[in-house]
Amino acid sequence: MNVDLPLSVPRGFRASGVTAGLKASGSSDLAVLASDQFCTAAGAFTLNRVCAAPVKWCRELLPADDIRAIVVNSGNANAATGTQGLDNARRTAAAAAAHLNCRAEQVLVASTGVIGHQLPMERIEAGLEQAIARLGSDAESFQAAAAAIMTTDTRAKLVSLRQSIGGQDVTLLGLAKGAAMIGPRMATMLAFLLTDAPVWGNDLRDILVPAVDRTFNCISVEGHASTNDTVLLLSSTAATLPILRGAQLEAFSQMVQKVTEQLACAIADDGEGATHFITIDVLGCASFDDARSIARVVAESPLVKTAIHGADPNWGRIVSAAGYAGVSFREEELSLAINGVSVYEDGMPAAFEEAALSTSLKSERNVQLRLRLKSGNESVRFWTCDLTAEYIRLNADYTT
Amino acid sequence: MNVDLPLSVPRGFRASGVTAGLKASGSSDLAVLASDQFCTAAGAFTLNRVCAAPVKWCRELLPADDIRAIVVNSGNANAATGTQGLDNARRTAAAAAAHLNCRAEQVLVASTGVIGHQLPMERIEAGLEQAIARLGSDAESFQAAAAAIMTTDTRAKLVSLRQSIGGQDVTLLGLAKGAAMIGPRMATMLAFLLTDAPVWGNDLRDILVPAVDRTFNCISVEGHASTNDTVLLLSSTAATLPILRGAQLEAFSQMVQKVTEQLACAIADDGEGATHFITIDVLGCASFDDARSIARVVAESPLVKTAIHGADPNWGRIVSAAGYAGVSFREEELSLAINGVSVYEDGMPAAFEEAALSTSLKSERNVQLRLRLKSGNESVRFWTCDLTAEYIRLNADYTT
Repeated sequence: MNVDLPLSVPRGFRASGVTAGLKASGSSDLAVLASDQFCTAAGAFTLNRVCAAPVKWCRELLPADDIRAIVVNSGNANAATGTQGLDNARRTAAAAAAHLNCRAEQVLVASTGVIGHQLPMERIEAGLEQAIARLGSDAESFQAAAAAIMTTDTRAKLVSLRQSIGGQDVTLLGLAKGAAMIGPRMATMLAFLLTDAPVWGNDLRDILVPAVDRTFNCISVEGHASTNDTVLLLSSTAATLPILRGAQLEAFSQMVQKVTEQLACAIADDGEGATHFITIDVLGCASFDDARSIARVVAESPLVKTAIHGADPNWGRIVSAAGYAGVSFREEELSLAINGVSVYEDGMPAAFEEAALSTSLKSERNVQLRLRLKSGNESVRFWTCDLTAEYIRLNADYTT
Repeated sequence: MNVDLPLSVPRGFRASGVTAGLKASGSSDLAVLASDQFCTAAGAFTLNRVCAAPVKWCRELLPADDIRAIVVNSGNANAATGTQGLDNARRTAAAAAAHLNCRAEQVLVASTGVIGHQLPMERIEAGLEQAIARLGSDAESFQAAAAAIMTTDTRAKLVSLRQSIGGQDVTLLGLAKGAAMIGPRMATMLAFLLTDAPVWGNDLRDILVPAVDRTFNCISVEGHASTNDTVLLLSSTAATLPILRGAQLEAFSQMVQKVTEQLACAIADDGEGATHFITIDVLGCASFDDARSIARVVAESPLVKTAIHGADPNWGRIVSAAGYAGVSFREEELSLAINGVSVYEDGMPAAFEEAALSTSLKSERNVQLRLRLKSGNESVRFWTCDLTAEYIRLNADYTT
């Protein structure tokens, strides 16, 4: 995804990104997103039974109406770190709070990186002092924050949307990171959505949860669900402006849906080592969950992913993946099109130009798979990427 | 797996393997396993909703007590081929039956290879004539059959076991193929077990199903469940010898368990591109299904598989995989050892020599992962392999 410039920054927020020294590479690794006002806030988190200390910290606090900041570090996940990890999450919040003149419970934290190591708290604390001193409300400050939360991402993921709702000029800015350990059973990865639309915390939650379900929960890189997945949505103006209601809230909900979809696609497109971005539509299902189960199994099959990497229209791998998703259907009711070319219709192979289809897979980064059942009217759109030798190289040697 | 030589061949069976011309490589691709006697027979098959024509054919016929032969072709899966595919499965059985002087319904068929292409019936029929003419009861004939069912396997998988049960000398021979599209939700792959132990068809089924569940259903290469998975167990002597009962049957059941476990491990060990063979024990679970769910998710995580490929003791990937298996547990009750070295105990990182553990991962093909919960007394042993760039290479260009 390319950043839409000029980036619109919602009123009331400031950001920064600095190098605290958590990464061996020396890249920036600590971001702060802060608000001068009390923010309403909601979150969505990993469902992994092994979940990171910062996730536990945020879960306790949200939804809330007095949030002042989010502190995010990359390079260390603070996951599987026991009670000391939880203490360190609290210490991180407290250190930021001391500089911002608020309570630790008004600071959310998020971490991403290697699992199983304690945070180096002296570096975090020194870095926080520096980061808070540099907070700025310009686009560059938000780009610095987006850069500081990257791990193996090849590009920063930052998007903004501005529109008028009920006569108010409203901005929604989102930033995210994620390129592996991306599995769709939850929020998946880190994403932060900041807005100056005046929305209550409970409304934020009611808007965020379904948006996450249709976007971040509809992407997969390799299906490995992270311990740290966190999506946070903060509004800076609920205390000062007329609150959005009814149709206004619905308009804002559409904005959230658009921004989360763009960020989710940006993550799938930046999957480690990816050479293809794959959109999977599954139609004609009895339920959304059925449709997503089929899409997920297709998206996560290494055989499907490698076939697409090889520009090979080996559609048998796709229909056979659909068959083991745990969804009941009759083979005679299944059809598949690849890049608009019908290859399998009602359980029978369709005649098509293999060479032409292979050429389109070879020349285009974007691939469309369309599976259709005849079990109902529910559907899903799901996003993933291919699996390449570069993914293997990146992951065969990461901690040591 | 190395073949134990001399191979013991059960009485009454003959085998052959020939080149019918289904593979572009010119390797052998058609095997026949035949019996002069009527065999009792049972089978276990894929649960994939998209299942191959030969699976449908066998499912209709089994269990049975008058089976005379199994015909197996590689190079073409005869899956997703509609009604013509089913006709071709029947024609294959009929062609063999004509040579063997029996009915088509006394011949089982199995196929493996590319999905979505119709079988070239003239080649199959010509090949069958040749294969049946060459049937032999020597070890070499069974080796030829085991070779003819290979696809991307790097070695034939053939094992025999001979012991005395109730004063009778009993032999069990098993042959299998499989190196990818190996997922553990069913029988998985092709395996054929031939015995001269006199066992009724219903008893064969009662012995086969649990053995498959603990062996072929406890392996995974990449988790993609095939359309063609078939395990068949045939006994040649139920009509002529005193039938095994009680403790004798139990002893035979142990033989089946041993042979299926050896074949299942041979498949996981020969996973496409594999450089490590991984045994995963999950202990202390409330149920066998819980234990297997955790083992499967760990086995199928590309992040776990690539870490082991890179000899990287990145245990966070393993415990985080356990956390998203859909099994409820408390993080504080989870422990992990890699190659006997405790790395995570009761939810906390354990101190260990990373360099030494990395060296053991680098120097040894066999890797042991041991996960322990405190939820009960059930356990599983599960087998898989690592994920390498060679797997990507093999699968990025297979049909075209």
